[in-house]
Amino acid sequence: PTKTKSRRQRWEVKPSEMAKNTLNPIRAIVDGMKLTPNPEKPMISLSIGDPTVFGNLPTDDAVLQALKDAIDSQKYNGYAPSVGYLKSRQAVANFYSSPEAPLEAEDVILTSGCSQAIELAINVFCNPGDSILVPRPGFSLYKTLAVSMGIEVKLYNLLPEKSWEIDLQHMESLIDERTSCLIVTNPSNPCGSVFTKEHLQKILKVASKHCVPILADEIYSDMVFPGCSCPSLASLSSDVPVLSCGGLAKRWLVPGWRMGWILIHDRNNIFGSEIRQGLVKLSQRILGACTIVQGALESILNNTPQGFYSNTISFLKSNSEICFNELSSVPGLNPVMPSGAMYLMVGIEMDHFPDFKNDVDFTERLVTEQSVFCLPASAFEYPNFFRIVVTVPEALMEEACVRIREFCQCYYRPPSCDVCQSRG
Amino acid sequence: PTKTKSRRQRWEVKPSEMAKNTLNPIRAIVDGMKLTPNPEKPMISLSIGDPTVFGNLPTDDAVLQALKDAIDSQKYNGYAPSVGYLKSRQAVANFYSSPEAPLEAEDVILTSGCSQAIELAINVFCNPGDSILVPRPGFSLYKTLAVSMGIEVKLYNLLPEKSWEIDLQHMESLIDERTSCLIVTNPSNPCGSVFTKEHLQKILKVASKHCVPILADEIYSDMVFPGCSCPSLASLSSDVPVLSCGGLAKRWLVPGWRMGWILIHDRNNIFGSEIRQGLVKLSQRILGACTIVQGALESILNNTPQGFYSNTISFLKSNSEICFNELSSVPGLNPVMPSGAMYLMVGIEMDHFPDFKNDVDFTERLVTEQSVFCLPASAFEYPNFFRIVVTVPEALMEEACVRIREFCQCYYRPPSCDVCQSRG
Ligand SMILES: Cc1ncc(COP(=O)(O)O)c(C=O)c1O
Ligand SMILES: Cc1ncc(COP(=O)(O)O)c(C=O)c1O
Repeated sequence: PTKTKSRRQRWEVKPSEMAKNTLNPIRAIVDGMKLTPNPEKPMISLSIGDPTVFGNLPTDDAVLQALKDAIDSQKYNGYAPSVGYLKSRQAVANFYSSPEAPLEAEDVILTSGCSQAIELAINVFCNPGDSILVPRPGFSLYKTLAVSMGIEVKLYNLLPEKSWEIDLQHMESLIDERTSCLIVTNPSNPCGSVFTKEHLQKILKVASKHCVPILADEIYSDMVFPGCSCPSLASLSSDVPVLSCGGLAKRWLVPGWRMGWILIHDRNNIFGSEIRQGLVKLSQRILGACTIVQGALESILNNTPQGFYSNTISFLKSNSEICFNELSSVPGLNPVMPSGAMYLMVGIEMDHFPDFKNDVDFTERLVTEQSVFCLPASAFEYPNFFRIVVTVPEALMEEACVRIREFCQCYYRPPSCDVCQSRG
Repeated sequence: PTKTKSRRQRWEVKPSEMAKNTLNPIRAIVDGMKLTPNPEKPMISLSIGDPTVFGNLPTDDAVLQALKDAIDSQKYNGYAPSVGYLKSRQAVANFYSSPEAPLEAEDVILTSGCSQAIELAINVFCNPGDSILVPRPGFSLYKTLAVSMGIEVKLYNLLPEKSWEIDLQHMESLIDERTSCLIVTNPSNPCGSVFTKEHLQKILKVASKHCVPILADEIYSDMVFPGCSCPSLASLSSDVPVLSCGGLAKRWLVPGWRMGWILIHDRNNIFGSEIRQGLVKLSQRILGACTIVQGALESILNNTPQGFYSNTISFLKSNSEICFNELSSVPGLNPVMPSGAMYLMVGIEMDHFPDFKNDVDFTERLVTEQSVFCLPASAFEYPNFFRIVVTVPEALMEEACVRIREFCQCYYRPPSCDVCQSRG
């Protein structure tokens, strides 16, 4: 005897609110651009934060060998614990442990890329209606994830004139009792900036004053140019608990392998066991990283030669300098020299480019005319800038700068001149 | 001039509701059990659905070689599209396409294991407050995911006396207008059952009548014993749209590799582009499967020899028969012969085992006394049964059955007898 119920009479299958609210600003902007390169010039794409696309930055052979050894061992085909193999967690703990911020295996959770690390961290801290503090300009994933989960995003300003340091007063003004975490990206995507020890201490002070835990996105940790140091946030914290998110993607140049981690730093036992258990529970939803990569992790961390890391950094620094020097002398552009990561931001004096509505328009036309594609920084909530990825081979970096110069010279209008110049 | 706001004065970092509500019944039950094996008998664990634990079921060399080739090619270290490489999606489409249910590359989304496929599918269909229909007994992940997302779970009954067919009337009685999807697991974990074509057609009829889309968990597809056929749900559907979830985990014996997929079957264009785009958007949250495994996928699907699959199945069938035959003659136990997958469910006539409160108690004591660990089916919402994983080597399967018999003989009380028997 089935009860009479109101049921559907016709097909109507609609995506959930969460699916509809999962908004990827990079896709939204890029998909809306007309990206038709000039057929006379080969395309140079400086838009994607993937160091592997040009083939000039292969990972180290030791990394590949570690993966093959893991396969041959036949020990890593079954399920791992949802937080990862103990041995692999131990290896990460050893690699990142320091006297100021010691780590044990139990402080490490392995994830499917740094993206899942960030997702778990936001997820464990925030309920719908809470808010998180996110840098502007900043990596778009934080907002994409948070908005889809009904979490409010408050953007705090970074200051280009102060090497992209945080506007601490602005950041502090955004904190209220629904603020459930502060996200700090250091070194930064999209800025390539690296905070000083003193600046990090000031950030910690604000977090400490208002009792806000930190999600430190440190996926670019140790990718800093020579002469510049980059302590981890946790190593400077005496009380503020920190979830540090990282992974193999960038420093080891294998973003596709999807190996990430969360390092739990909680010197004062503020997270206690509850946050830890919350992370463990969340990790059981879909399980984490591929076991073959997990099996290789210890060897990857221990056997990658130092020269590999330093070669990558030298290359990124040299390319950044080429790009910065070239564009510094281009009228209407204001590049900001990075200190790490693999990006460089360039300000556009839009007043002097009246032909273009905004950074999207500017970069779109740069493709159409010069076949150079840079991401408009609107994708990072920061209009009137564009981001250059500096992993491209040196010759292409130079060629791209020449073309950008040509493009700007063509459209630049000096302060007191509103007469149209000849257009090459 | 910072505004005065209500802010936190002291540390209080608590896990989110979602973290707290991510409940894993298997962990909850197993962690609550006292699992101290009898020191005189080596432990035989028949509890985990991981075919690799005993080493007797290695994956095929072709599968391992495909992975190594993918590494050597150096082509699969960068980011793949969030839904997977086109070539790999094409390979899956080709592998599963049939005249009745044709598939193109665009109908395939690659995911991090079948678990993420299920998560994306539930996520795209359901808003908080909606409900999903889930089999009882059934794989626990559906409920774990749904509850954490605020989705109601309605359990429909499977009938052990009808080889675990669905009680269709019961299932239909649970449908109302908030029912956003029907989950069908075929072949089944934990039952090892395989539905007939006729039964699948009846399921589709109910779904069609009430316009409910289907999430078909077909991770064990093609793992059916000789003589038994197992058409996919989608191949029998004329109107009902189906998301079929699968992966490499079980049939290729590499669950740790985290390679899963969603096959989108939507002959009548009921999902339209919206559900497809919803899935694509959701896939961008954390990205999916490891690119090395993606790179190997085409070769894995095309080059794994037929003999590998059939050997696995013969083994599972033979072990199931050993187990079924042995336990059929044990007083108080009612094993149900499976037709596929790698599980066998055993009913316990609790009336005849007055020493034990329930299946948890029963299986706990089976460990303490006989060092045999089977999962109590309470973990699948089905008390008074336990589940046996039949991937264990034959000799251990036999030994386990002998011990289970000994255990039962010791505690079995015949109908009209309440005098205690001697306890070995
Ligand atoms: C700042 C930052 N965090 C996290 C990620 C994501 O890393 P993964 O590819 O390991 O998910 C990126 C990738 O570009 C990034 O720039
Ligand atoms: C019915 C069923 N679906 C899905 C899964 C999860 O598969 P995966 O390991 O690929 O995430 C399992 C694993 O046991 C299962 O039994």
